[in-house]
Amino acid sequence: MKIDGIPYRTIWLADDASVAIIDQTRLPHEFVIAHMTSVAEAVYAIKTMQVRGAPLIGAMAAYGVALAIRADASDAALDAAIAVLAASRPTAINLAWALKVMDGVLRPLPPDQRADAAFARAAQLCDEDASTNRRIGEQGVAIIREHAPRKVGGVINILTHCNAGWLATVDWGTALAPIYIAHDEGLPVHVWVDETRPRNQGAALTAYELGAHGVPHTVIADNAGGHLMQHGQVDLCIVGADRVAANGDAANKIGTYLKALAAYDNGVPFFVAAPHSTIDWQLNDGGAIPIEERDAREVTHITGRTETGAIATVQVTAPGSAAANPAFDVTPARLISGLITERGVCSASANALTALFPGSTPPQ
Amino acid sequence: MKIDGIPYRTIWLADDASVAIIDQTRLPHEFVIAHMTSVAEAVYAIKTMQVRGAPLIGAMAAYGVALAIRADASDAALDAAIAVLAASRPTAINLAWALKVMDGVLRPLPPDQRADAAFARAAQLCDEDASTNRRIGEQGVAIIREHAPRKVGGVINILTHCNAGWLATVDWGTALAPIYIAHDEGLPVHVWVDETRPRNQGAALTAYELGAHGVPHTVIADNAGGHLMQHGQVDLCIVGADRVAANGDAANKIGTYLKALAAYDNGVPFFVAAPHSTIDWQLNDGGAIPIEERDAREVTHITGRTETGAIATVQVTAPGSAAANPAFDVTPARLISGLITERGVCSASANALTALFPGSTPPQ
Repeated sequence: MKIDGIPYRTIWLADDASVAIIDQTRLPHEFVIAHMTSVAEAVYAIKTMQVRGAPLIGAMAAYGVALAIRADASDAALDAAIAVLAASRPTAINLAWALKVMDGVLRPLPPDQRADAAFARAAQLCDEDASTNRRIGEQGVAIIREHAPRKVGGVINILTHCNAGWLATVDWGTALAPIYIAHDEGLPVHVWVDETRPRNQGAALTAYELGAHGVPHTVIADNAGGHLMQHGQVDLCIVGADRVAANGDAANKIGTYLKALAAYDNGVPFFVAAPHSTIDWQLNDGGAIPIEERDAREVTHITGRTETGAIATVQVTAPGSAAANPAFDVTPARLISGLITERGVCSASANALTALFPGSTPPQ
Repeated sequence: MKIDGIPYRTIWLADDASVAIIDQTRLPHEFVIAHMTSVAEAVYAIKTMQVRGAPLIGAMAAYGVALAIRADASDAALDAAIAVLAASRPTAINLAWALKVMDGVLRPLPPDQRADAAFARAAQLCDEDASTNRRIGEQGVAIIREHAPRKVGGVINILTHCNAGWLATVDWGTALAPIYIAHDEGLPVHVWVDETRPRNQGAALTAYELGAHGVPHTVIADNAGGHLMQHGQVDLCIVGADRVAANGDAANKIGTYLKALAAYDNGVPFFVAAPHSTIDWQLNDGGAIPIEERDAREVTHITGRTETGAIATVQVTAPGSAAANPAFDVTPARLISGLITERGVCSASANALTALFPGSTPPQ
């Protein structure tokens, strides 16, 4: 998608054969491109959330393997790279999936052919992600379109949580892909953007990318969505997912569950948009999805821009008070109106998922 | 309650006959006492939330009338003071209630007797609030005590939203009063403190006052409570209220509804603690409670303390993005396990409220 009229992806191979990313820890106040030249830098980028979002983490991991193999193409180096990348974030299944893809391609090859193959496969994985997300958008826009006839003269209000836009993927996004297509088609969409504490991915990233593309939106505190739904100000919710269990339970950014409860209580459709690589066929339900506990400092301190334009970090909690920071929660399938995948929209159930993805084997 | 071992109330008549308050916009990083000498200053204190919390707003309004009457004891001045104070915050019913009390006392008196009577009634209203809240605590501690036998060797985890502690009242608090008494009795309580965006009253005020009193607590993002409830880490929820309708629907800080939904979904008891002055017998249900829309800047900007100790305000949203800021939501009575009042605990229903408060006439 575009920033100031220039088309970007979130990750690409730069001219100097380093891997370039948009440093998302600097958004929305600074647009900075960072360059990765080693697997250690790739791990650092994932851990510090310079790149984040399940699909983009997968893409970064694939390039991380490529960077490792370029330095040392041995089996031992491949094993080490996969191990350190796999441990960089625990919740997103795309990370493990991308590493599995890379391992499958590289291990059978003689070491001297591995580097070229690794960069080629990583680039292909990025292209596939952009293409998959575009298809998610095409599937999901039909849901938005259904609301248009009831909204003559008004806007279609869509609530989203966290950032599942193009910045969370290689391009297009998952939850936001249908919204971009709807907007480009001329449907009068307006997005309620949950700020998404503690890291404010909504206020910082979703608001930034929607604004850059010209999509009308309003940032709200995470607390506000229930009230808006009670008052008919939300027509539907679309969120992304970090992992979807075989029964349709979906792990996503902490607080997603609360919005799903409110949507259910108010009869507002609640959709989860995710590519097939997000589905963990090994898990019967969401109870076994590991939930990352992140640094308490993400709760106690907030970074933003002062009036003078400087970037500053302030403590907002009472001095001495402890904080806890679970990063994800699991929304039970019973609260989900449907899953928007690149292959179609289906109900959040084992039967529907199996029907859409026959075989239900672990994705390769 | 105490700060650094010194007992305080949130509002008191100072030696120079000004009305002293703890400036809550400066907490938790600075402890500053402000002095009000006019009704305009009282209105400013309420509007800018130097004082906040429904009971404390009522107390400030009562003293605001006294300050006005000291300057001009005419009926016209009384009318003007009541009008400007009534308009200072729309949601808390205690404000209207306190003004009605003051009007009832002052209007029958000859002007030259009004100032003394006004200060006396305001002081009495403060004493009554402290005493009422102490009784709410005594009623509510029984609910906490019920959890103790199941928690041998463990802690009783109580989640609260916003600040309904002593800082929200004249003393003791509403939702936190039972917790202070439980803690003082030696019950092993631990409080999950919702940070309560956008104004962070939980992170700043609830955490501050619990810490000052020595009550174990942990600050969490507002998004986290549902996840904690799903995992059995919350034994009960206690929140305050800004207005309770005759059927038990309760308006409280934005986001309360989401926690009530999660509590209901997970079988966690959810209690609303409020004095009788919070009950609006004129409203059959919560649908008619006016919900204040506050400045968008409360969402887009956050104030805190930098590493050097300076107080700074930073913008956290993407530049140019709009924000909306509804300040309260209404939790339907069906999601509330019970109301903790100074007269007893009752179910959130018209019948139970009428039984506890026979007559159900507007409070005087």
